[in-house]
Amino acid sequence: MNETTQGLGSIDRTSEVPYYLQLARLLEQSIDAGSYGPGDRLPGETELCTDYGLARSTVRETLRHLLDQGRIKLVPRRGAFVAERIDPGWRLQGTQGFFEVEVDQHHSVETRVLEATRCVLPDAAAAALELPPASAGFKLARVRSLDGKLALYSINYLLPEVEAVLRASEVITGVGSLNRTLQSAGYATVRARRTVEAVAADEVLATLLGVQTGHPLLLVTSVSWDRDNKPLDFYTSWLRNDIVKVTVEAQAA
Amino acid sequence: MNETTQGLGSIDRTSEVPYYLQLARLLEQSIDAGSYGPGDRLPGETELCTDYGLARSTVRETLRHLLDQGRIKLVPRRGAFVAERIDPGWRLQGTQGFFEVEVDQHHSVETRVLEATRCVLPDAAAAALELPPASAGFKLARVRSLDGKLALYSINYLLPEVEAVLRASEVITGVGSLNRTLQSAGYATVRARRTVEAVAADEVLATLLGVQTGHPLLLVTSVSWDRDNKPLDFYTSWLRNDIVKVTVEAQAA
Repeated sequence: MNETTQGLGSIDRTSEVPYYLQLARLLEQSIDAGSYGPGDRLPGETELCTDYGLARSTVRETLRHLLDQGRIKLVPRRGAFVAERIDPGWRLQGTQGFFEVEVDQHHSVETRVLEATRCVLPDAAAAALELPPASAGFKLARVRSLDGKLALYSINYLLPEVEAVLRASEVITGVGSLNRTLQSAGYATVRARRTVEAVAADEVLATLLGVQTGHPLLLVTSVSWDRDNKPLDFYTSWLRNDIVKVTVEAQAA
Repeated sequence: MNETTQGLGSIDRTSEVPYYLQLARLLEQSIDAGSYGPGDRLPGETELCTDYGLARSTVRETLRHLLDQGRIKLVPRRGAFVAERIDPGWRLQGTQGFFEVEVDQHHSVETRVLEATRCVLPDAAAAALELPPASAGFKLARVRSLDGKLALYSINYLLPEVEAVLRASEVITGVGSLNRTLQSAGYATVRARRTVEAVAADEVLATLLGVQTGHPLLLVTSVSWDRDNKPLDFYTSWLRNDIVKVTVEAQAA
């Protein structure tokens, strides 16, 4: 093993994880740990083959995988270079919630629960949840801060049957993830449709989020469904995009 | 064949397309044509088996596929029902552009080209395109209307080498899709990263988009890459979300 890849760990020949993926993970760990920074050249194919005892086709599969993940760039005749890593913020095309995403990205999220009550669902919520008008539901209104800064205000309207689950959970005290709590209780979101709008803060939103009245806010409206296309959650969320970065990773169909 | 599924077409036994997918397409065509409206019950499994001469497992695969596509809902012991069809607007997690998406959804898009010039790239554009500061590029500024209503203003900064392609195309006269034109010329986007923000219209944007100064606009900033992670296009687009619906379809990882 030469200097460049020293200490990276080695391929586990007894593991069920394909070799190319094992090598990809080793290289990713090494990038995440800062051993290779953005713009740095990775060891060449031949070197990786020798260091890890892998076939050239396997190493190429690893590089293709890292390329597809946007972790590296391939420059013809020059090799593989570590791509710029940009904090993606809240990726809207995932079903994860704001809390999970930001905490996973090493941000701190504090939540103030303003309301957690049984309610008569507003028309839009009842329609989204495919319940008759004026059905009962559970309302959760929260203000959330990101790294100590007021970031978003959201109102979730949930199925009445999840009330007990939530009341027994840390969601109600402002700790823990709504998404993960629901998932643990068998309400797993597999699909969601979100619309994104720009709106001007009214007085209430301005006060809650610490901005001037009229300040532009991002409004995300979302319906989530389980694997049987049963709606689970309808929420509206007003965000300060000076605090929360909202991104979408697009892929060709 | 009975009344319900009459005229739907039949399974082509010589085709390479799997039977379940052929049946799914026949049912989708029939839904799109309005033979089954939202909330209507589809023929039962037994009926579909008989009408199309298919095994029950195949018909079930069809229904599972339509369920995954969000086209139907399955209600235990009652059957398959056509799901509500919502105009998704501009789906941000696709690499398609505004024009393609809206035209495919049967809207009309008119484009006024304000600028189509070689330029010195602004810093943000040069960085996104991974070119040295003050590199040359091609700038395309356009105002676009949806069904006759002012909808968005966008500025694309493109690689200098695509200028000739664009000058020879209908993009420059405001007809045709930038995305499709680039793709035909070998510049196919496979991946893009978009950020979404809410901003207040300044005087210029207000005039261009026919709104009051201060009106909240959606700002989409996008970088697209080809299959080798080479950047192709950097754009900023200001949208009126009262005219353009912007959505994101989220999927669990």
